[in-house]
Amino acid sequence: MPLEEVERRLREAYDRDFHFEEGRVLGSMCSKPEDIAVKYHALFSEANLGNRGLYPGTAELEEEIIGDISELMHLKGGWGQFVGGGTEGNITAMWIARNLSEKKKILAPESAHFSMKKATDLLAMELVDIPLDNEYRMDVDALEREMDGDVAAVMAVAGSTELGQVDPIKEISEVAGDVFLHVDAAFGGMVLPFLEDLGRWSGDWDFRVNGVDSLSVDLHKMGMSTVPSGILLLKERGYVDSISVESPYLTTKRNIGLAGTRPSGAVAGAYAVVKSMGRKGYRDVVKRCMENTEYLVGKMQDIGFEPVIKPIMNVVAFKTDRAEKIRKEMDKMGWKISTVRRPKAIRMVVMPYVTRKVIDEFTEALDGLGYA
Amino acid sequence: MPLEEVERRLREAYDRDFHFEEGRVLGSMCSKPEDIAVKYHALFSEANLGNRGLYPGTAELEEEIIGDISELMHLKGGWGQFVGGGTEGNITAMWIARNLSEKKKILAPESAHFSMKKATDLLAMELVDIPLDNEYRMDVDALEREMDGDVAAVMAVAGSTELGQVDPIKEISEVAGDVFLHVDAAFGGMVLPFLEDLGRWSGDWDFRVNGVDSLSVDLHKMGMSTVPSGILLLKERGYVDSISVESPYLTTKRNIGLAGTRPSGAVAGAYAVVKSMGRKGYRDVVKRCMENTEYLVGKMQDIGFEPVIKPIMNVVAFKTDRAEKIRKEMDKMGWKISTVRRPKAIRMVVMPYVTRKVIDEFTEALDGLGYA
Repeated sequence: MPLEEVERRLREAYDRDFHFEEGRVLGSMCSKPEDIAVKYHALFSEANLGNRGLYPGTAELEEEIIGDISELMHLKGGWGQFVGGGTEGNITAMWIARNLSEKKKILAPESAHFSMKKATDLLAMELVDIPLDNEYRMDVDALEREMDGDVAAVMAVAGSTELGQVDPIKEISEVAGDVFLHVDAAFGGMVLPFLEDLGRWSGDWDFRVNGVDSLSVDLHKMGMSTVPSGILLLKERGYVDSISVESPYLTTKRNIGLAGTRPSGAVAGAYAVVKSMGRKGYRDVVKRCMENTEYLVGKMQDIGFEPVIKPIMNVVAFKTDRAEKIRKEMDKMGWKISTVRRPKAIRMVVMPYVTRKVIDEFTEALDGLGYA
Repeated sequence: MPLEEVERRLREAYDRDFHFEEGRVLGSMCSKPEDIAVKYHALFSEANLGNRGLYPGTAELEEEIIGDISELMHLKGGWGQFVGGGTEGNITAMWIARNLSEKKKILAPESAHFSMKKATDLLAMELVDIPLDNEYRMDVDALEREMDGDVAAVMAVAGSTELGQVDPIKEISEVAGDVFLHVDAAFGGMVLPFLEDLGRWSGDWDFRVNGVDSLSVDLHKMGMSTVPSGILLLKERGYVDSISVESPYLTTKRNIGLAGTRPSGAVAGAYAVVKSMGRKGYRDVVKRCMENTEYLVGKMQDIGFEPVIKPIMNVVAFKTDRAEKIRKEMDKMGWKISTVRRPKAIRMVVMPYVTRKVIDEFTEALDGLGYA
């Protein structure tokens, strides 16, 4: 096909996609990556840390960012690696837990991301849903009742997909004891440290809790970097031995983790954005997102919708029996929101590209439906 | 950190990495992506087909490329999706085979990529190595002896990592019967069709063999596109039901495959390069790589090294008892090659960036070691 025709078709496809800068996507946890992340991702597009020996420069960038994020999550020593995202992070953590324990049961809150179902099926494990308390956090008493000798792992959520809720991780850790404890902080990991800086929230959710063995966080969500820049952190370097395989014909003797080829342009992209934003940059972004979240809550209350919980982070859901109907009708008008299963609710994520102007237009359109 | 400092560090890291255009990497199966692939990957950097409803344009690009590659592999109907690479393709195929059959045994040739070990451990399956014949292809008689009622999948290789060898897939299919048959064509999938066009090779290796149920091929290897652009093709659309999970709060009801967030900039990158190169473009690249492979074989014979097999594709190994010693000494001089386990050999991949000038310099440096 002639080059002009190829490029014309690509431009047309691009125009058909939704774009964050248009602001009408209120149901996505991904953000528009910063320009500098896109630029360096592209420069490093051939980097493949799956064959690490060829990319000593990229490998150092990875180590430095893993160090920075470890510090942010209060992990000293330990081990980390870029992964494809929260799903791969959760799968890998459960894989390690299963291989270390030779047991099969996973205890996870009902609010866990659906990737836990995927991990369970893939790994031939067994998922036990732990009910939630009145605040939609994992019920620690219910967890305690399910603890037995067959448990390979307990997982907890720091920033649930549906409500942005944080499980009581310290109490969970006390119940879990020596059992492997994984924290899914895919979204919350790049929000909570800055909420703490801002004095807006406090709690124990990361490696400050001694029993936490692994934690996953995505830099392509609130980290504002390019896909795929998930990070998996492990308390002990030795854990990875349980899932590494021999890798002949590569520049390293053993290959660690799920992926073979690793798209490591994302490492350079993450380096560019994390280092240039700095802690203050992220704090400012989180501050603005939280102020806009509160603005959204006020506007929604004005038109008759109440939040399911007072939002901790920039994820907020509003109770309504007509959630699916509202989602569909808003979709027809070009607004993308999502729904929550229990309690029935519509859900929005106030990402950095969601401005007050967008919130005004959104709530006006929603009010026009007359479903409050 | 100030922006200039961030960018200076990234440039330094870039300089420390190996780069394909420098030509001294003779052991990598990845190629330098074409500029147009990098350009459109960057433009589509926010695309995430894990949340398909937001990206109808990218979704169409994916369908069109899956259609083109399906045609190249003689798959009519069926189903396909971009995946992270050959490893994810192999894992996903075995996951489907296990779930469809509820059995655990995988029969794979000794020449299979190490990702099969990873898949086996991850999926709690059992890997049975099938020995190779004199030409380092899967021994069909040995396969037949291992077939029993517990076999979930047979896998075969079209372009082995170490020797570029192609298993006798038609004969394997006859032995496998109704058992799920997966073909790993991660490297060979973008070489063999063009060797056939050029009249340089013929054989049954793809969906022309009726028993083939799945096939994986990487566009970031000989497809000259960006990482991660693996493709998994399935004979039947229905196979994916066995591995899909419910995905509330996304724009699609069910989520298929291993990854959650999918880095779909690679889809646009692949579209750009596949469409603009066209069949003729790839044929020309493969022709040049094969001519250079033959040139390398001639030069190596001149200095006293014999190939393990007459190369079918642009992967070639040369017998030597001092493979590891040679690899290390060449590494000190800045040459990156790899080694083969059995028979002991050094191995090179004559990717498009490997020129005759590079081959001359390489063989001269190797000759200087005096290890022939």
